Amino acid sequence: MKGNVLIAQSGGPTAVINSSCCGIIQEVAKHKAGSTGVYGAINGILGVLNEELVDLNKEDASTIELLKQTPSSALGSCRYKLSDNDYDRLLNVIEAHDIRYCFFIGGNDTMDTADKVDRLLKEQNWESCVIGIPKTVDNDLVETDHCPGYPSTARWLAIAVRDAGLDTRAIYTSDTIKIIETMGRDSGWLAAASALARDGDFSAPHLIYFPERPLHPDKFLADVKEVYSQLGYAVLIVSEGLKGEDGTPLVESKAELDVDAFGHAQRGGVADYLCHLITDNLKLKARFDKPGTIQRVSMACASEVDLEEAYEVGRKAVSEALAGKSGQMITLLREPGDEYRCSTGAIPLSQVANRSRFLPDNFINPDGNDVTQAFVNWLEPLLSPGLPAYAHLRGSMVDKKLDAFH
Amino acid sequence: MKGNVLIAQSGGPTAVINSSCCGIIQEVAKHKAGSTGVYGAINGILGVLNEELVDLNKEDASTIELLKQTPSSALGSCRYKLSDNDYDRLLNVIEAHDIRYCFFIGGNDTMDTADKVDRLLKEQNWESCVIGIPKTVDNDLVETDHCPGYPSTARWLAIAVRDAGLDTRAIYTSDTIKIIETMGRDSGWLAAASALARDGDFSAPHLIYFPERPLHPDKFLADVKEVYSQLGYAVLIVSEGLKGEDGTPLVESKAELDVDAFGHAQRGGVADYLCHLITDNLKLKARFDKPGTIQRVSMACASEVDLEEAYEVGRKAVSEALAGKSGQMITLLREPGDEYRCSTGAIPLSQVANRSRFLPDNFINPDGNDVTQAFVNWLEPLLSPGLPAYAHLRGSMVDKKLDAFH
Repeated sequence: MKGNVLIAQSGGPTAVINSSCCGIIQEVAKHKAGSTGVYGAINGILGVLNEELVDLNKEDASTIELLKQTPSSALGSCRYKLSDNDYDRLLNVIEAHDIRYCFFIGGNDTMDTADKVDRLLKEQNWESCVIGIPKTVDNDLVETDHCPGYPSTARWLAIAVRDAGLDTRAIYTSDTIKIIETMGRDSGWLAAASALARDGDFSAPHLIYFPERPLHPDKFLADVKEVYSQLGYAVLIVSEGLKGEDGTPLVESKAELDVDAFGHAQRGGVADYLCHLITDNLKLKARFDKPGTIQRVSMACASEVDLEEAYEVGRKAVSEALAGKSGQMITLLREPGDEYRCSTGAIPLSQVANRSRFLPDNFINPDGNDVTQAFVNWLEPLLSPGLPAYAHLRGSMVDKKLDAFH
Repeated sequence: MKGNVLIAQSGGPTAVINSSCCGIIQEVAKHKAGSTGVYGAINGILGVLNEELVDLNKEDASTIELLKQTPSSALGSCRYKLSDNDYDRLLNVIEAHDIRYCFFIGGNDTMDTADKVDRLLKEQNWESCVIGIPKTVDNDLVETDHCPGYPSTARWLAIAVRDAGLDTRAIYTSDTIKIIETMGRDSGWLAAASALARDGDFSAPHLIYFPERPLHPDKFLADVKEVYSQLGYAVLIVSEGLKGEDGTPLVESKAELDVDAFGHAQRGGVADYLCHLITDNLKLKARFDKPGTIQRVSMACASEVDLEEAYEVGRKAVSEALAGKSGQMITLLREPGDEYRCSTGAIPLSQVANRSRFLPDNFINPDGNDVTQAFVNWLEPLLSPGLPAYAHLRGSMVDKKLDAFH
């Protein structure tokens, strides 16, 4: 290898983004010269602009190996959109440190950054390779079967909803409607994943709502009422980014908060809003759980497939770079057949940057309040080693000997 | 054994309450006659009053065994305070089904129920044994070292706060103050448990607030400001039941909600309230995670010690009953010495019912915004197998070659 290596992580952290980082570092180690520097940018592209680079060669091999089991972004992260004003500085830092390989791990904003850096370096005839490594719990990158990070949060949610569903059923005499708010400002991939919690008839979740379908309050209330009258309780899953009939978010989104940074916009969130809609109209008690960031960085519930694939896309990025294929994002390609297998591929960054992938129509039921079996089949193999099996009592009732009470 | 056995679960579900149920069933199986009925009351004491009993002898042994790994209350639960009007009916059901052993698994309200049932049956000279088995994530039962259920939720919180702390640190350029709201309306045992998340200098949580100490807004804001100026971010833990300077809850509690069942009292909760206090006064962005019921029923993060002890208190209840010791609650007694060991004991129900145990003064720091090392030492052995170890980069910086940017 000629020159030095740069690794940057950006966007929201995940359980497996460090696994990709580890994949890059360990694969580079197989090919690098003694003099090759391996630098980690502190807080993504900001670390490059600020010339804040960690010398990853000075880390113990055991620390690098442990990254595979360490959630969040070990190098720090950022949400920063590169502008023309940054380009000179960027070039200066890259040249000053003789950086010839750039690996950007992140979502579609990060792929935009990677694309810009790639174009800049090509324009300046700076011989280098820029590769994007996909990462987002939102699963909204196009051109890949799924995004590393998503299966682990999906598994966390499926487990949490199975557990919380049993909780709500057990104690329904005091809590009747439970709403769990998932991440997902624009797409419903995470809300949809909660469907995998089901392990029997009538088990939670009973209704799932996605940003891909506008929420009609009357229809929503009718849905809730129907489940409640059947079961005596209900567990609902809602994406944080649910939209109203006019297509705007039911409660102000984080994007708007960033504009009005100190306003009161996030008060309670969409689950809180819907709790009150239910309480006011159906006179039922409704409560919400909002696990927030906890859902995206849980190593305890991480998917084994996800950890492995995150590592593999990191390795693949290095082999693409060594093959001189700059300007690519690594993808996961699901192979046809009954048994789950994914291979890695690559696609031009420009085809991925700033684009979003939504839940396709065939993954949402006609009523817009649940997923389809096609979605369940698609997601299931990504949640290895599956979900824990729980006991279900047969519940054979003892014959009554008395008249009814009261 | 003479007559039949009744098991009831009540109060909030936990990860390990079914483990106690399994302990009772499996221990009874060793002693029961062929004709002994083993009945599970559906939804606690309500199942007795309504004569809704499940025949647990008709369940497969493998299902009973799987209860050890099944969260929530398999028999259902309730929050129902027995009144004098219920006593005749209660007696009728118990006599009709020849129930001679009653096992009530729950918290201090449940112990009140058990105590009342015990007194009633003694008054009526109905030969029987009533035993209480402790269970509550709130850890607020007196006369026991700790309550089964608490170590598992404590472990869940410690892991979640460690993970969320790494998340907040990584992405602090966009999220500066993170507040995580734990359960605990009256006591701070769960909020305190988050301290075990720490695995290095400056790691989360940075501040912890308990219902045992009134929250002074100015002092709170000064605390937050100090951490923020040192680290550039902060992770705060707050009990849902935080109280203001006048001793009343900062936001209306569930108890008040039950009076005004359809009011808007729970809007957002205390974490949301404090987010706005921070935003309004310090002009910092603040967000909250409110894991809610998910924290109390997670089998994935359950403590091994807790699962085992929950099973043992169930077994111990049976041996006490067989020894004819009615009117007792089983306790956990920590043995002196460096190595953690707990044995089981028993104490009269009347000494436990309706009483609450708060965090003692020596577990809260003088500032009222953190725990002490004594608390950490007390809790640590209950979280087996400990917390996962995460990678910490040495973070040796590459020498800068350029002037600062901007």
